[in-house]
This record gives sequence, structure tokens and C-alpha cells, in this order.
Amino acid sequence: MKVPKALSNLIESFQKLPGIGPKSAQRLSYYLLHVPQSELDYFSDALSRLKKDTVVCSICKNVSDIDPCPICSDAKRDQSTILVVEQPLDILAFERTGKFYGCYHVLHGSLNPLDNIGPDEIFIADLITRLKEKNGRSVSELIIATNPTMEGDATALYLAGKIKELNLDIKLTRLGMGIPTGADLEYADEATLREAIEGRRLL
Amino acid sequence: MKVPKALSNLIESFQKLPGIGPKSAQRLSYYLLHVPQSELDYFSDALSRLKKDTVVCSICKNVSDIDPCPICSDAKRDQSTILVVEQPLDILAFERTGKFYGCYHVLHGSLNPLDNIGPDEIFIADLITRLKEKNGRSVSELIIATNPTMEGDATALYLAGKIKELNLDIKLTRLGMGIPTGADLEYADEATLREAIEGRRLL
Repeated sequence: MKVPKALSNLIESFQKLPGIGPKSAQRLSYYLLHVPQSELDYFSDALSRLKKDTVVCSICKNVSDIDPCPICSDAKRDQSTILVVEQPLDILAFERTGKFYGCYHVLHGSLNPLDNIGPDEIFIADLITRLKEKNGRSVSELIIATNPTMEGDATALYLAGKIKELNLDIKLTRLGMGIPTGADLEYADEATLREAIEGRRLL
Repeated sequence: MKVPKALSNLIESFQKLPGIGPKSAQRLSYYLLHVPQSELDYFSDALSRLKKDTVVCSICKNVSDIDPCPICSDAKRDQSTILVVEQPLDILAFERTGKFYGCYHVLHGSLNPLDNIGPDEIFIADLITRLKEKNGRSVSELIIATNPTMEGDATALYLAGKIKELNLDIKLTRLGMGIPTGADLEYADEATLREAIEGRRLL
């Protein structure tokens, strides 16, 4: 059976999203047939305005309504500590902890030679410039919080090398590694356990 | 942290979709920040035109570009057999089998007293009218293919009662029930096994 064009267009768009396969895309599209037109218009409007109504903060490269973003322009945040993340979404995770009062820097990706993502494709140069400009004035610690994956680790190593070359007086740290809260030791993989043993702390 | 308004609007819309929770909605919205504006516009357009560019077929109540729908207006389809389904999506499943050459009738729901869905809220009256008009001329078999759930079974029973009252010469059938292809008997539930024993066939 031929699916109506209006439906197949929508199915096609949903299917391009990560984690949504052909069946889910169909289900979502048919579901939307029962939704009031006003809600569809709201959704449609949100989509088309998404990029028009957001800017990338010129300081930390986070996505924001305004430039500089609310975190960078907040006088109460500690400008001397910068936490480096891969994606804007990572910032939300750290903000939810309520335990970090410094600023951020978003790389918008990680080094990945297989996908042709080199140091110039992500915001590494901007971070270096930011550190150079600020030094003497403020940045005292840089926490590298890239993902604990091959690409994230490679990015962290590359960044650390680049920053050490600058000979600035900046403390470089990485996030603690080990067993996540609530995990079952029995199912922990060797790499995680090895990190947990290496990173053990005094009680 | 305050998420930019453009992003939170989109997250809110995604979150209303079935099977998409707050985390997935966030992930999808942030993902779309990296998508070209042209694709966003296409998606947005597909959403706002979804209901404007589709009609409900006046005969079978399926969603379609044109009225009557391609199946109802196809002279090669057997107009004397009608398969009754709950949702338009169910038709796709039957069409994929390539084994059904009759026509359909979409109820657009099932009887559900808890949600205040009675016989008048779904297209039951239209089916009755269709059967009355057509009888003597064509409809010889009605296959009730509602879902094997409480609501689907109740709908099937209600429909069967209503049609028998009409005293028309129509064969009423339900889909065969039993173990699905590829299933493991060990994990089959009792209700399914009971149906499978009752519906056993000669080899």
C-alpha cells in the first residue's frame, strides 16, 4: 500500500533521528494524526526556529539564547575553573549535580580520525586562545571531562599535550574514573575495575 | 542551568510523543542543532502539513491522499471481504503480508469505558451502514482483526452482536490465535497456549 505523501515525508524525517528506526518513525507519524493542529504547529514552529533562535556563546561555545551565555556572564561563577566537555548536553548533566560552580568550554565533538574529525574541526583552538588571554588574570584549573571512550580519551591526551606546550600555570585534571554509584561489582568490566583500583582513595 | 527557549520548546514537543521520555527528548533536540536548516525546514513543513494534506477515506476511514482511498477505488480488490482494524497502521501490517486482497474498515480506536470511548466514538455506525448498503450486492465476509487485548476483544464481541442483529447473510470471522512464528514455547503465556490448543489444526 502507498502511504500518503504527507505521512511518508514525516516518517522520513523521524527516521533520520538517532535511535528512531522505521517502525518507530511510522508509529510516531500515525500518532500525530490524532493530535490537534495547534500542537502540530507549535512543534513545527519549534523545529524551524531551533537554530534561528539560538546562538553559540562566543566564550564557552555553549548553545544559548544570548551571547555571552548566562553561565559565562554570571559574576557568581568561578571564572578561574574551566570544565571541558564534548557536547552542550554534557553541561546539563554537570549543572544537575549542583556541585560545579566554575565555567565550561564545549568542544562540540571529539577527535575521530575515522570520521575525519581533526583538531581543527572542534573548538580546541578557541580554548587555547581563551587560556592564553585569560592567564595571569584568571584560569587556574582546567578539568577535562571528555567521554571515557577511545575518541574522548584521545581528545583529552591531545588537549593536555597542547596545553602543556604553552607553559602556563594551569592545573590540568581529568574526571575521576571508577565504579558508578549503584553499580554491581559482579558485572563491572575489567577496564572499569582497573581504573577503580588505580583511583582508590583513603577512607 | 536554563536551557535556551528554542531548545526547551522543542524538547517539550518531543516529550509529548509516545515512548519518548525527557532524556530522549533532550538528546533528539540537541542532535537537531547539528542538522542543516534545510532539513529542519523539511521536517517542520511535514509536521504542519500532515493533517492538512491527508483525508479520511469516506468508505473505509483509512488515512489517504485522496477520497476514496487507493484500496477502496482499486477494481482488482475483492470488495466482498472487509477486514476491520483498529488503526490505519494495522492496514500496513496486513498489506505487507501480500496475502489479503479484500478491503478494510478502520475503527480508529477500540471500546474503552475507562477512557470514555463508547461505540459512538469510533467508526462502528459507519461500518454498519456500509454493510447494510452493500448487502445483497457484495459483502460476504467480515474479518474482525482488532487487537487481542481486553479492549480489542470487547470491540470484536460488540461488533459481532450488532451485525448478527441485522440478520444479514455475512460470514463473521476473527483472526486465528496461537503461537507466533519463531516463538519459543517455553516462554509462551498460558492464555496464548490455551488459544493454540483450541485452535489446533490437522496436519
